[in-house]
Amino acid sequence: MGPRDGLQAEEPVAAKERAALVDALAEAGLQEIEAVSFVSPRAVPAMAGAAEVMAALRRKPTVRYLALVPNRKGAELALDADVDGLTVTVSASPVYNERNVHMTIDQSVSAVAEIAERVAPRALPVDAVVSCAFGSPYEGDIAPVEVNRLGERLKEVGAMSLTFADTTGMATPRRVHDLLEVVGPDVGLHLHDTRGTALVNAYAALERGVTRFDTAAGGIGGSPFAAGAGGNLATEDLVHLLDDLGVQTGVSLERVLAASALVTEMVAHPVPSRVAVAGPRDRSEPG
Amino acid sequence: MGPRDGLQAEEPVAAKERAALVDALAEAGLQEIEAVSFVSPRAVPAMAGAAEVMAALRRKPTVRYLALVPNRKGAELALDADVDGLTVTVSASPVYNERNVHMTIDQSVSAVAEIAERVAPRALPVDAVVSCAFGSPYEGDIAPVEVNRLGERLKEVGAMSLTFADTTGMATPRRVHDLLEVVGPDVGLHLHDTRGTALVNAYAALERGVTRFDTAAGGIGGSPFAAGAGGNLATEDLVHLLDDLGVQTGVSLERVLAASALVTEMVAHPVPSRVAVAGPRDRSEPG
Repeated sequence: MGPRDGLQAEEPVAAKERAALVDALAEAGLQEIEAVSFVSPRAVPAMAGAAEVMAALRRKPTVRYLALVPNRKGAELALDADVDGLTVTVSASPVYNERNVHMTIDQSVSAVAEIAERVAPRALPVDAVVSCAFGSPYEGDIAPVEVNRLGERLKEVGAMSLTFADTTGMATPRRVHDLLEVVGPDVGLHLHDTRGTALVNAYAALERGVTRFDTAAGGIGGSPFAAGAGGNLATEDLVHLLDDLGVQTGVSLERVLAASALVTEMVAHPVPSRVAVAGPRDRSEPG
Repeated sequence: MGPRDGLQAEEPVAAKERAALVDALAEAGLQEIEAVSFVSPRAVPAMAGAAEVMAALRRKPTVRYLALVPNRKGAELALDADVDGLTVTVSASPVYNERNVHMTIDQSVSAVAEIAERVAPRALPVDAVVSCAFGSPYEGDIAPVEVNRLGERLKEVGAMSLTFADTTGMATPRRVHDLLEVVGPDVGLHLHDTRGTALVNAYAALERGVTRFDTAAGGIGGSPFAAGAGGNLATEDLVHLLDDLGVQTGVSLERVLAASALVTEMVAHPVPSRVAVAGPRDRSEPG
C-alpha cells in the first residue's frame, strides 16, 4: 500500500508518477496493491487525482488494484475508476475515529454498510480495516474481544475480510498473539514501525498462521492525522525475511528494491527501510 | 555494551563521561556492563582511557563490570583496573579476522588461551565472542557446525561462556534457529540492526530459550572496522519488548531511557532506537 498509505502524508506526487510506482509493484509480483484513495483532496491533498492514477496504470490481469474509500460517494468514484476491490476503515478507538473522520463508530459502521450495499451488485470485495486494533493513544489498550466485536459487526454489514491495524505502533508480539487468539489467523495485519516493532510483530503473526500483510515499499508512510505514527512495515524487509525463511511469495526482492528506489526519488528523502539502505544479506558490505 | 561497542566508532568521549554512562546503566538495573576495552588507543581512539573509566566508576557490588581485551597485555591492564570479567573475540570468518586483528583464527584462539591462562589464578570469567557467526561479508554464510566448532575450541582453551555475534547484520530468525539447534540456548547473542532485524532475531532466540543478549542504550554502535555495520540491538527496545511479554529483567525501562538520553548528548546525533524516539507504547502520541 505504498502508493496509498505510503504517500498520503508526503508532499503530493503527480498521478502519473504514482501510477508508475503501482506498475513497478505489479512488476515485482505483488498481487494486491492499494493504489489510490477516493477521499476529499482538501482533507488529504497527496491523494488527489485517484481516477487519473487508475487510468494511467498498465493493468495486469493477475493483479488486484484496490482503493480506500471513506463513504458511498467514494465507492461510486472507485466503481467508475474500475477498481478491483475496496478497503474501508473504522477505528476501534472512539476518540480516534471521531478526530480522524468526525463520526462515531456507529456512524462509521453505517457508512461501511452503505458502501458494501452500493458495490454488492458488482460483486466488489470490501476489506474492512479496524484501526487502533492494538491500542489507542487516547484510550490505551483496547481489549481483543472488543476489537473482535467491531470486526464482527463490519462483516455483518458486508465486509468480506478484515485487517487489523497498528495505527500508532503500539502492537507487540504478545498483543499480536492475544488478538489472533480471538480473531483467528485468517485476517490481514497492517503494521507500523513507530517503535521498531513492525517486523517482529509480523514474524509473531506469521508463526501463528497469518499470511496477509499490508506493507509499503521503502517503509514510508504514517497517518496524516497521527503525527507520531512511524512508517509502514517495509515491503522489502518482509520479503527479505520471508525469502530467508523459505516462504514462497512470488514477489521479487530485487524488483521491490527497484520500486523502493523509485519511492526514494519521489519523496526526496531517505526511506526508513533498513534493507533498502544496507541491501540484502547476501550483499553484505565488509566496510 | 553501549560504553564499549556503542561508543567505539563514535568521536572520542571523555573517560569521566563514559564512566557516568556506565553508572547510569548500573542504576537502570543492568547486571553485566561491558564498560571498556583495553585495546590500542591508536587502533580505536574512542576507547582510550579505559583505566580512567574503571577508576571513575561508582561501583555497585551487584554489577559485573566487563572489559574487552585483545591479548595478554590487555588482560593484564584489565586485571590492574580490577574488572569483574573479560570478553575476547574471534571471528568465524578467516578473512574478517585477518583484516580486523591481523591474525589467523588459530592465532586468535592461541591469544584467547594466553588470556585465559593469565587470568585463571584470579578466577576471572572469560566470555568468548564468535563474530560473523551468522555470515560474513567475505565468505557469505558460515555453517553452524563450523561456528560451533570454533566455539568449542574457545571453551577448550578456557572461555567459560560463548556469545555469537551478528557482526554485519546478516542474521535472520531462520539462521538464529539453525545456529541455536547446534549450539543450544545457553549462549549469549550479540545482534546488530544493519537490516532492521535485531529485535526480530532476539525474539526468535527468546522463543528458543536464550536469555543473554548484548545491547547498547540508544542502539548506537557498529564496528570501526565494518563501515556497513548498523547499531547494536537497543537496550530500551529489548526491555520494552520483554516488559510487554511479562519477562522479569530487573531493568527499569525509564532509567534505560535516561541513560539513552545521556548517550544522545554524548554522541551529539540522534540514536537509532525507535523506542527512545517514540517513547514506550503506553505513552503513544495521538499526533
